[in-house]
Amino acid sequence: MGKVALGPQSLVYPMPAMLVGANVDGKPNFMAVAWGGIACGEPPMISVAIQHVRHTLKGIKQNQTFSVNIPSVDLVKETDHCGMVSGAKADKVRACHFEVFYGQLGNAPLIAQCPVNLECRVVQILNLGSHSLVIGRIEETYVSEECLTEGRPDVDKIKPLTYVTSPAARYQGLGEVLGKAWSVGKRLA
Amino acid sequence: MGKVALGPQSLVYPMPAMLVGANVDGKPNFMAVAWGGIACGEPPMISVAIQHVRHTLKGIKQNQTFSVNIPSVDLVKETDHCGMVSGAKADKVRACHFEVFYGQLGNAPLIAQCPVNLECRVVQILNLGSHSLVIGRIEETYVSEECLTEGRPDVDKIKPLTYVTSPAARYQGLGEVLGKAWSVGKRLA
Repeated sequence: MGKVALGPQSLVYPMPAMLVGANVDGKPNFMAVAWGGIACGEPPMISVAIQHVRHTLKGIKQNQTFSVNIPSVDLVKETDHCGMVSGAKADKVRACHFEVFYGQLGNAPLIAQCPVNLECRVVQILNLGSHSLVIGRIEETYVSEECLTEGRPDVDKIKPLTYVTSPAARYQGLGEVLGKAWSVGKRLA
Repeated sequence: MGKVALGPQSLVYPMPAMLVGANVDGKPNFMAVAWGGIACGEPPMISVAIQHVRHTLKGIKQNQTFSVNIPSVDLVKETDHCGMVSGAKADKVRACHFEVFYGQLGNAPLIAQCPVNLECRVVQILNLGSHSLVIGRIEETYVSEECLTEGRPDVDKIKPLTYVTSPAARYQGLGEVLGKAWSVGKRLA
């Protein structure tokens, strides 16, 4: 099995398609972020990588709060729109018809239409080069009622998007269930 | 659309199923990691969250290098096995029949059977609570020859796994293509 060295690349499969939100000058704004993931279990934390110039980052710094919203496959156009347009030039909330609500932190805007919403307080912002890595503590988790099964978030109802970059940037849904974790590995031997 | 507050949860959809590798006391070891993602674009960096006691973390600290290997759907059993068993007690490389190779760093073990391999040098390790967030600079990217299309990594040939935690922890493949990024959002209006 031959390997080809391609030089340093930011190549992880799959990536989540997240909508990161913040109030910028008091107005809710959202951007699409694929670069990020859970950073700690206890307390629960998440990291998102954002270019320094981004409008949403300005709001994160102003309030030291932000949100991570998980869109469903139904929101693929809105998600892509939030990745293409800057909130400095356009009102993305209006264009996407987002219904915004606030939780316990009071100034981290959350998108009602997204089935999962994480309300976060900034723990640390690292300047890593082209991007700031924003690490936030997840203070509260909101899930749409109709996406719960016996009180637990249900991925089959949430229907999340994934963002894939190569060979072409595109969005995909989740596919076939391949096995239970902490279980299928027992059958190795 | 009603929302239910579930308390702080580490709930992101979807997560990647990555195999993070390091030489521990000179011997290659791999663990399954779902908590992580790209942390910077230029230079390319990745973050992975690892519990302090984990055997692989010991190796990462010893060498200040590690690898991130993206398994394909064919490796679901091996991936789960690497998440269930500690390298302190068992030789996972042998159990999984992994063919290990080394790249330019010399001591970050890479898995030949995984279609994508990132070779990383530690930039920073943050103690965030239950987990250490290891941030690494991606020094080289290796892709299996048969997973390239016109020289670019092709997700349809790579066939990555995704790890989903709720309502039950399981592995899924990627599904339907929903739209091109930087494109489908134009159709919003």
